[in-house]
Amino acid sequence: MSELTESVTRMMREFERLPGIGKKSAERITYHLIRVPAEEAMSLAESIRAVKDNVRPCRVCYNLCESDLCEICRDPLRDHQTICVVEQPRDLIAIEQTAKYRGVYHVLLGRVAPLDRMENEDLTIAALVRRVRAGTIHELILATNPTVEGDGTALVITNQLQDFPIKVTRLARGLTSGSTLEFANKDMLTDAIVGRQTMK
Amino acid sequence: MSELTESVTRMMREFERLPGIGKKSAERITYHLIRVPAEEAMSLAESIRAVKDNVRPCRVCYNLCESDLCEICRDPLRDHQTICVVEQPRDLIAIEQTAKYRGVYHVLLGRVAPLDRMENEDLTIAALVRRVRAGTIHELILATNPTVEGDGTALVITNQLQDFPIKVTRLARGLTSGSTLEFANKDMLTDAIVGRQTMK
Repeated sequence: MSELTESVTRMMREFERLPGIGKKSAERITYHLIRVPAEEAMSLAESIRAVKDNVRPCRVCYNLCESDLCEICRDPLRDHQTICVVEQPRDLIAIEQTAKYRGVYHVLLGRVAPLDRMENEDLTIAALVRRVRAGTIHELILATNPTVEGDGTALVITNQLQDFPIKVTRLARGLTSGSTLEFANKDMLTDAIVGRQTMK
Repeated sequence: MSELTESVTRMMREFERLPGIGKKSAERITYHLIRVPAEEAMSLAESIRAVKDNVRPCRVCYNLCESDLCEICRDPLRDHQTICVVEQPRDLIAIEQTAKYRGVYHVLLGRVAPLDRMENEDLTIAALVRRVRAGTIHELILATNPTVEGDGTALVITNQLQDFPIKVTRLARGLTSGSTLEFANKDMLTDAIVGRQTMK
């Protein structure tokens, strides 16, 4: 019996180490995995192996890549003095698809979200500050999501970069292309008025 | 890039299938595992493999075991007409250590906890009802924890067994041996008074 419970206890402990998973959740997940068919549990284990075998964060920008440096950080034709800061790898992909940005990136791997107990240390902000401290950066474009948590994250980063002589901007916000004023909500209209652009 | 994100997306989906893990938690765990050293992530994958290789729930009582039937269910000297219903395998171990119980068990693998979105279907209650329906059971001892959730679970089971001609009991509760009245809380004293035992 004791050997059996040993592997079960070990699995609970492993799940407990994951962010946002407490003792109760770890226990529940463990009993769930004991109950489900072996293929289902092994599929989870296998997906972890596949990611650790194939994917690693870029040493510089934390973009997902297969080697030490991601393709963008390796590209000499990109503007390495401008960093666009995004929450997730998929935000980076969205911006790349516009083909309008030629700088490099910094992927935070999350956002500051105290309610989810997601703190600064869980993100790659310290690495971003190190990049700025190295001294070759001219502009930082904060492209966190236009949400309370995204704005909070942008604020945290701005505060930490107070003392560096760099330009810090954030993505414009306002009306969405193709929408109508009638259906714009209060926040969108406020952004549109405050950030109004000169025509003439 | 698309292949990279594929294995990452797959891992997120795998974590999302676990009980109590939503989209946001799955994403966060995924980025956490990408960031940590390979050994740490592989240790989690390995613990899942170890459990699925070595541990399975007993076909009858859901106790942890290494074969189809657990040692207790296989033991002809146990009283197979009495079932003690516990939440977790470790509760079973605690009761076995008293050496006062000679019946068999039924392990629920959890408790009814609506706040944790843990519902009846997540437990092995249906299997318990099937055992009772088979008709050889005389008494069911509900040994769920003396907590709100444990009491609720006992109630759910009692309701489902309303129509079967079996005795359903639950563990006695009252003062704890070695304690003093002075430090007993209101709930303990209420239990002790309501469940008072005849001396003479």
